[in-house]
Formats: sequence, C-alpha cells, structure tokens
Amino acid sequence: MTDAPTRQQTWLSQPHHDGSGRYVSNQAPRLGDRVDVLLRVPLEAEVDAVHVRTAPDGEATFTVAKRVRTTATDDWWRATLTCHNPVTTYRFLLTGGPTKYQWLNGTGLHTRDLPDASDFRLVAHDSPPPAWALGSVVYQIFPDRFARSRRADRYETPDWAIPAAWTDPVDLSPKGVAHQFYGGDLDGVTEHLDHLESLGVDVVYLTPFFPARSNHRYDASSFEQIDPLLGGAPALRRLTSSAHERGLKVMGDFTTNHTGDAHEWFLAASGPDGKRRPERDYYIWEDGSYVAWLGVPSLPKLNHLNAALRQRIFEHPQGVVRKWLGRSGGLDGWRVDVANMTGRWRDTDVNHDVARQMRNVMARVAPDALLVGEHFHDYTPDMPGDGWHGVMNYAGFCKPAWTWLREDPKDPRFLGAPVPLPHLGAAAVVDTMRDFTSRIAWQSLVHSFNLVGSHDVPRIRTLVGPDSVEAAAGLLFTFPSMPMLTYGDEIGMEGTFGEDGRRPMPWDESDWDTDTLAVYRGLIAARKGSVALRRGGLRWVHAEGDAIVFLRETEQEVALVHVARDAHAPVVLPAHHLAGIENGAPAYGPGPEIGAGAVTLGADSALVRIWIWKPTDGGARHARRRGR
Amino acid sequence: MTDAPTRQQTWLSQPHHDGSGRYVSNQAPRLGDRVDVLLRVPLEAEVDAVHVRTAPDGEATFTVAKRVRTTATDDWWRATLTCHNPVTTYRFLLTGGPTKYQWLNGTGLHTRDLPDASDFRLVAHDSPPPAWALGSVVYQIFPDRFARSRRADRYETPDWAIPAAWTDPVDLSPKGVAHQFYGGDLDGVTEHLDHLESLGVDVVYLTPFFPARSNHRYDASSFEQIDPLLGGAPALRRLTSSAHERGLKVMGDFTTNHTGDAHEWFLAASGPDGKRRPERDYYIWEDGSYVAWLGVPSLPKLNHLNAALRQRIFEHPQGVVRKWLGRSGGLDGWRVDVANMTGRWRDTDVNHDVARQMRNVMARVAPDALLVGEHFHDYTPDMPGDGWHGVMNYAGFCKPAWTWLREDPKDPRFLGAPVPLPHLGAAAVVDTMRDFTSRIAWQSLVHSFNLVGSHDVPRIRTLVGPDSVEAAAGLLFTFPSMPMLTYGDEIGMEGTFGEDGRRPMPWDESDWDTDTLAVYRGLIAARKGSVALRRGGLRWVHAEGDAIVFLRETEQEVALVHVARDAHAPVVLPAHHLAGIENGAPAYGPGPEIGAGAVTLGADSALVRIWIWKPTDGGARHARRRGR
Repeated sequence: MTDAPTRQQTWLSQPHHDGSGRYVSNQAPRLGDRVDVLLRVPLEAEVDAVHVRTAPDGEATFTVAKRVRTTATDDWWRATLTCHNPVTTYRFLLTGGPTKYQWLNGTGLHTRDLPDASDFRLVAHDSPPPAWALGSVVYQIFPDRFARSRRADRYETPDWAIPAAWTDPVDLSPKGVAHQFYGGDLDGVTEHLDHLESLGVDVVYLTPFFPARSNHRYDASSFEQIDPLLGGAPALRRLTSSAHERGLKVMGDFTTNHTGDAHEWFLAASGPDGKRRPERDYYIWEDGSYVAWLGVPSLPKLNHLNAALRQRIFEHPQGVVRKWLGRSGGLDGWRVDVANMTGRWRDTDVNHDVARQMRNVMARVAPDALLVGEHFHDYTPDMPGDGWHGVMNYAGFCKPAWTWLREDPKDPRFLGAPVPLPHLGAAAVVDTMRDFTSRIAWQSLVHSFNLVGSHDVPRIRTLVGPDSVEAAAGLLFTFPSMPMLTYGDEIGMEGTFGEDGRRPMPWDESDWDTDTLAVYRGLIAARKGSVALRRGGLRWVHAEGDAIVFLRETEQEVALVHVARDAHAPVVLPAHHLAGIENGAPAYGPGPEIGAGAVTLGADSALVRIWIWKPTDGGARHARRRGR
Repeated sequence: MTDAPTRQQTWLSQPHHDGSGRYVSNQAPRLGDRVDVLLRVPLEAEVDAVHVRTAPDGEATFTVAKRVRTTATDDWWRATLTCHNPVTTYRFLLTGGPTKYQWLNGTGLHTRDLPDASDFRLVAHDSPPPAWALGSVVYQIFPDRFARSRRADRYETPDWAIPAAWTDPVDLSPKGVAHQFYGGDLDGVTEHLDHLESLGVDVVYLTPFFPARSNHRYDASSFEQIDPLLGGAPALRRLTSSAHERGLKVMGDFTTNHTGDAHEWFLAASGPDGKRRPERDYYIWEDGSYVAWLGVPSLPKLNHLNAALRQRIFEHPQGVVRKWLGRSGGLDGWRVDVANMTGRWRDTDVNHDVARQMRNVMARVAPDALLVGEHFHDYTPDMPGDGWHGVMNYAGFCKPAWTWLREDPKDPRFLGAPVPLPHLGAAAVVDTMRDFTSRIAWQSLVHSFNLVGSHDVPRIRTLVGPDSVEAAAGLLFTFPSMPMLTYGDEIGMEGTFGEDGRRPMPWDESDWDTDTLAVYRGLIAARKGSVALRRGGLRWVHAEGDAIVFLRETEQEVALVHVARDAHAPVVLPAHHLAGIENGAPAYGPGPEIGAGAVTLGADSALVRIWIWKPTDGGARHARRRGR
C-alpha cells in the first residue's frame, strides 16, 4: 500500500484479438462463408507483417493480413478467412519487433512454436446458439428448496421422503441427504418471479422437475410427466408462461447419462420379462447386471449405442427433449446433467454424437433453445462447437476464481479432489482461465455458464468469506459468459458443501443480507446496462497478486473492470491505450484516477470497479459485416 | 566459457515419470488391464502424498499412490490404474513441499491447474505396434535418386520423363521439378544394402514405388503393380528378401489422400462413361469437377466416405494395403502420405476412421507391420493411439531442432511458412518439444519417425552448416523415437530445399564426407549398443542456451546425453542424482568430468557426448510385470 505507484506490466501494449464482434465480422458463419478477422497491434510492438495461419482440411496454410488503419496508438490488421471446415482454427504470426517471430493465439503472445490447441477458432454451423442467450444472467433453482406455494400442502408426501418444515436445518446425515423433503414446488417459483425480476436475471434454470425418488430428482422415474409434487405439467406451464410474460427464459435439466432405478424404462428392463423388452437395451448390461453412474445402484446408465433409446429421447415428438421444449413444452433450453460421461463406457464413446444429435433436434424443433452441458473437469475436448452450445464452466472459471479468492476455508476441496485447493495469485489464476477458455470457440465460451457456485459445491460466501463475495460476484458478472448464480447467493446464503448449500431459501427478508443483495443487483444492473459487458471482447490488462484488470470492448463501448481481492499497490496503466477513458462514468464501484498519461487503479481493500466509456481511438471496422 | 562452473538449474531435483518401461509396468495393455505407474520423487521435493488423477468415462477421479521404496536420494511412489477406456489419461497430484499442491504431467511440474492435454496416457489396444519397431533407425530412400542398377538401362524412358545422367545437377526449373528422371531403381537399393548394413540402420523406408508420371511417384497411376521403371514386383521381392536376410525391414509409402490423374480409377471415373462407373465415387466431385490435393490438378483427392473405395484399398486381399504387405507382399509397414489431410474435406472428417481401419486391417493380416502417418503441423489431435502407430515428427522434433541449430541459412523456412524460422535457445526449443510430445502416448512417440530432414525439406547439412551436423544427428539418434535419416545425409549431401535435397546419391566414395559418415555410424552404433537409448525413458536434465542434457533410462542402464550447439559454460550437475555414473563408459564423444559431488559437462565447441552406466541407486520395481 505504501509502494510508490509505478507502471506495471500490462498486456495493453501487446497485440490483441479475440472472437467477439469487435474483432470477428461474423459471429455465426455458415460453411463456406468468408469472415474478416481484425488484429489490434500497439505501435510499440513494432510489428511489420502479419500472417494468419489456418489448417483447412488438416493442412497448415498462411493468409497475408493487410494493415487497414493506423491510429495514434495502434495498427489494425485485417485478413479474410474462409470457413472451409466446420471449425477453422487460426492464429497470427507477427514479424518485426525485437523478436521477429511471434505467435498470437488465445493464450497470448509466444516467441516459440506451440501446438494448435489454443488457436482461435471460427465455428460454422447451420444453427448457431440463440440470440437471447448472449450475455444473459442465469439463476439456478433447486425446486425442493426455493419456495413452496400453498398448493404444495395438497400434495401427498411420498414414501421415500422425510418431510421437513421450511425452517428446519438441512439434515446432512446419510439418511437425510437426498431424502429430506421440504416440498418446494414450481408454483413457488412462479410466485417469486418478482424477486428474480428485481434482481435482474434473464434465465431461470431449474434442476430436475421429473418425478423421482429423491429431493434432487436426478434419479428420474419418468420423463413423460412433471413431478406431481412440484405441481405437474400445469405448474410448469404456469411458470414458463409467467416467466415469458416477464421476459425471462426457463431452462430444464435432463440427465442424458442415466435414469433412476424406479424409471418406467428401467422397471421394464429389469422386470421378470426384462430381457424381452425393448427397454432392456436402453441400459448397459454386463454379466447380467446393469451399469450405474459411478456405481450408484439407483442410477442405471443409459446406453446411447441403442438407436431406439436415442430415437425415444431425442427424435420422438413426445420424447423428453422435444416434449417440454419450445412453444408446446414451454422450456427455452436444456442443461444436460453429467454431460461429460454421457455415451461413454469402456470402449464406447458416442459422447459427441449424442451432443450433436441433441443440438440438431433442438435446432430443428426449437431453434431458439439453448443447450448447456455439465462438465466438471477439462471440457475443452468435448466442445468442438457442434454439440453443446456451452458448458458449466467449472474448470476455466469457478475453480480458478476459488483458487484466487478462497481464504482458509474449512474444506476448500473441489468436487471430490483429495486435497485442498491451492491459494494462488492473480497471474496464475488468469493463466489457468486463459488455458481453458482459449481452447474453445468464443461462441462456446459466451454460451457457457460461468459460476462461482452451484447446488453441487459449497456456497461462495462460505468458501471465500463475506468480505470476498463482492470480488467473486464482480468476476462472475463481468466475464464473457452466461453468469449463473445459485438461488440465495444474492442474499448471502451459506453452506459448507453441495448438500449443505441446498438450504431452503428464506423468504423473510429480515434473514437476508441486504448488502450482498445490493452487490448482486448492482453488478447485474451494470451488466445489463452495458453492451460491452454483455457482448464485448475480453482484453486482459493486468493480473498480479491481488488485482485482476481487464477490458470488455465493443466498437461503441469499453468497460474497464478492476477486481481486487485485497488492498494492493496501485496499478498504473498508460492512458494512451485507453483513449476516451476520461469521458467515462462508473457502472459499479469507484472510478479510476485519471491523470495526464496515466490511469491509476488503487485499492485500499477488496473492491470491484467498472468504468465505462466510448472509445475515441477509432480503429478499424470490418470491411463487410455479415450476420443475420 | 570463462564463467566459473556453477550448479545450474536442473530438472534432476524434480519428480519424474514417463511412459517408458522404467515407469509403466505394461507397455501394451489391453482394455481392462491393471497397470502400475511409478513416480520418482527426489527427497528434496519434500512430497508427502501422491494421488493419480484419471478420468474414466469422462469423469475425473483420484487414486492414492503408495510410497513403495525410499533410496538415498528418492522416494518411489506407485499406483495401480485400470485401463477402463482405450485411452487412460493420468497425472500426478503431489502434496507437501513449499507449494503444497503440484501437478506433474508430460510437460513437467505445475503449481496451478491446467487442461488435460499434456496428461500422461495409457493406450489399450488389441494390437500394439510391432516389437521390432521400438528404437529402430529408419533410412529414407527416394528411389529415383538413390542408386541405379544395370537392369535399369533396359527400361524404356517414359514420355513424361526428362532423362538425366546420374552426375547431372538437379534441374530446379518448373519443368525439371517432378520430371527430371535419373532412373534409380529398386535393384539399385538391393545392391547397396551393404552400405545400409554398415551404417547400422534397421529399416528402409521407400518413397512411392507405384507407377506414376513423375520422379516422386506421389501421383500413382496404379496401386496394383510396382513401377516397371523400378523393376516391377520382382525387384521389390528381391529387395525385401535381401533386406530381410540381413535383418532389415522395408516400408512402403501409400498416398491415402489422392491418386495421380493417370490412375486407372481416375481414368475410369473421368472418362466418357465416368458417371456410370463405380470408380466415380472414389473421388470427390463438386459442380462436375474433381477436388484435388491443394488444387493441384494431377492429384485428385480420394473420397473416403465411399465404402467401395475403402473396401478396395484397405480390406480387399489384392487391395494396395494388403497386397504388398507381410509374407506375401514383402513389406513390413506403410508410411502414409498426406495422412493429415486424408478423409478431410469441407464438412467431412473421417480421418480417424481411415486411420483406425488401416491399422485394424494391418493388424489382422500382418500384425508385425508398422503404420506411420505423415503430418506437418500439430499431429497431436490426430494421434489418440488407435490409428497411426506414429507420425513423421516434424512439429515436435524437426522444427524445434532446426530452430535451435539453424544459423543464418539462405531460406530457413519450414514447408511453406511465409517467414524465416526463429533461432532460439535450448530452453524454448525443449519447451516446444515437450509441448508436442506430451500430448501423445509414449507408445505413439516411440513409434514416430523423428527426423531433421526428409525429401520434402532442405538437407540438414545445408540448413545448419557442416559444424552443426553432429549436434543435429546427436539429437536425432538419442531421443525416444524411430530416428529417420534421408539417404545421403550420412555422407554430407546438401540441398537448399526439398527438390534440391533430392540429388542423386554419389557412389564414388571419394565424394563422401567420411567425417560425417563416422558421426552417423558412431551415433547409430551407440544407439544400437544401448538398451537405454533404444528403449529407455526420457528424463530432461538441463536445457539452456547452447546446451541440452537429458537421461535415457531403463532399470538396467542409464545414458546421459549432452548435446552442445556451441561452446558454453560448463553444466554442473549434482552427482547424487546420477548414482553409479563414475562406473560408466563413453558410448560417443568425450566423457563428463566426475568429481566429488558434482558431474561437470563442459563444451569448448559443439559436441555430442553419450555416457552410459549401470545405475546403483536401486529404485522401485513394478509389483507385477505384465505384457509381452
């Protein structure tokens, strides 16, 4: 804190490209389309030639880029690429300057050769992700625990359930887990849409609502009805209609990987005449036993080599994917549970086939629907761009954010990891974020759910402590992605791990942390109010120790985001790379100190600062702008 | 050079694992096999627990490793993994020590999270690569230019050919390229097997020998016969028989990607009744025109979506792959031309299918045959382990080696790159090598052709200069791989680019650089004489500026390799990590200076040093050794 402000290492002086509309002329190209890519090169980089390397049909080739504009600070280079294949990988080869040979890919500048994994990529697809999804904020609801309507009193408690009153503590005993039943229902959600609207979210994502024999309902006993304990199909209809009236989208949760062992298909398959039933082959049998998710007997694994199963769940109009989707079904998309394991067993791997089929069916019957897969570790090989629109971004966002923000939590492990997470500075954390996010297309990144928590992990407040919630939320709501929060994060709910994080939402507002609610409302409002935060590119500025600084940019607007996890020496940036910043305004938090030639970002404690302005440095435009 | 010897940064003090038999109990596991993996952890790393992370069926999971032995210098940890899927990726999570959280993967130690791409991997396959291939040295022959037998005088020069006398210079004019015809033949190769035997190579790899209309013959006009200009099938039989008698293997070269436009299939397909011929669909037609390799009209691209084509080339007993292979055909394997583009065109990508099919057919009819694909850029996504046994390792070896060794060559470009290669120090070069080679299985690496030149690129002597040929060859013959040299490299042949590098081999030994020949013979002999160089693991020791140092290790033997591109300050290593080194002997070049506590590797100029000893530090053995 007493360090004299010195100019820090910043990426602002390095060439930049990303997959956003600022740099790529067509965000949804089709096969054969020509797409312009722009490169911004600060003059001090002394670049004198730029080539773009692609690998059409698997053979490396180079396209010459042209210098199309020079501003006071930057050269802008442009090349035109053809989407010859569904995925066009590309990176820039820069010559000139002191090193004479530099690659720019999704992890930045490199002076040596390296594999193609982090190359930028264009994905050509006949049905791109839905327009509404871009930049939207997602609110995750665990139906048993969000809200209970009066109708719920009429539903009969089933045999497997251990009833709980709304104010009872969560029972973490082996018996209570999965069976403690608070009886939240879909009408409860409908009744509280006001809260979501005032919070500012765009999408309600419901964990499973199919009938099951657990409170989490990931063990569906049917996909043909909505759990009567949640109000059945009419309640879902009421919810989706009300949500849509308010401009909110609603997504469901489908377990492509398994059903419950009480599922009608599994009962048929495992019954006395099971071997003669077509449902038998919906599941995987070995030596007379069925294969189950991680060996949990109540979750028999589906066999995606079976065409009849695939037909039944994906293609059939009354199959689960189509029945509940779009105009007739009400949903605006699916989140897919255990997407990472779906279609994988021993020497079978039809995971990509399944993802593509689900994407294609949805594109056909509900082209405005979103498809997001759950993935707990390295999702990048599973995201070529033609399957899931996005994933739950644990690996490339949640875990790095935790690594930066966690402070001596009781059990800071991550989903079964055997040792505590490390506690690292911003440089390492941002390197990890870039490593993951550079390996998928920009379109896949911006349609992924970034998150700092979910119903499967500790509450963010418990993990990082109350003082760091703002920083966590600051990262969450400013990154390119679809930020997802879990019901109750916004009022400061706590919980030490997944199950404990599923406490019932208190509706007595005196139980709410209104400061936290203000943080969430403020950040979501900032995002909604800024085209740069919703749709802009991502240009890293600085990441060191306690500070992360980046820009979100469109042609019209720049947002400077500064998140500090603690007090740190001021970050001093060269003002000439931030032309127009002096005319900006704060969208959240305090403004920067804007002096002659330098912009100073101080932090006396943890903070989030978002400063927005109209850029005055000009820069190149796309020669041809296409799109839809 | 006048720097005082100081102990350099070395990887010797870091934990180590690789995919070799020293660390992995089964080099050819089958699905379901349990395999032990060992980890060596220097005591100074202070590791107190080790977990191994795998991702069976796409879900991350951890296996606890046990400390099975502690030596004077190292802890040895062991875990048992199950080959549940065809590919089992794994990496080590180390706790303890100053950082408390470290990953070890194929690129080394990391204190932050990172994607899985460089995880180690076990590949389970019913037909592993042939045993003879491991560690073998490959000699590439371009038949028109290697040697001409007397029989060749009887063959009639074809219409497309521009005859040349053996001593004529290569005609680099557009007309001469591809058509200048020296008339080397297969009997010429047979006559010179003595040379190959005395050189010490194990495998003769012949570029194409099918009839064609060019000197390179990559434009086959038939796959059903051997070019009569080369002596026809009888000459191939004579060559393979003689080679086999000497214990040499012979590999052919098959263009899966295309044929020549004079190919019998293409003539049928493009003739007046072409549209009615089954061969029509062997090729790709768009708007009445055929698709050609990189648009070169003489090379129409094959359509691997066509089942009849796939049947004809892969499955049929008289198809190209089977006809010339094994007991009846004589060949010991195929090198596949343009493997990287095969089966790829616009939205079609059946590349992996083709590779798998070719592998499986070969495994069935000639289980001892090797399959190596050409690949010019990042081969790692194309090498899951069930297709090509290996690739031409340009990206992970040739290009980095050039980058380290090139010195102001006239045109130091790489296969169409638009700018000169950089000239970098050893640290960057080794980082690039590790980046690529860590992304494929050890089995894929050791069955890949490492090379510092081929018929497609400049001669290594021309590229690096005579003084650096030894260093280039030193790297080539000491790495885990199948080192491949191009005919004539061993006698100092020159050539500024691919075509110029195809000069006819002089057989007057007064034209030979016998010093270079001694280097090649010496290095190949060192490799043949050392089980560590042929089959050992790869443990990096030091890479900085002008020096690269590494160990090749088996349980019985350690080879220390030191390659210097120039004089450099001595590299001083802690002797306790090299137990037994004092009892070693030089296999090539000068020995190290072995003092009390330190091993010093000096270099007054470029050099290659290989020092071999029996390790006396013990270390753990595999609990169960399986395999063949």
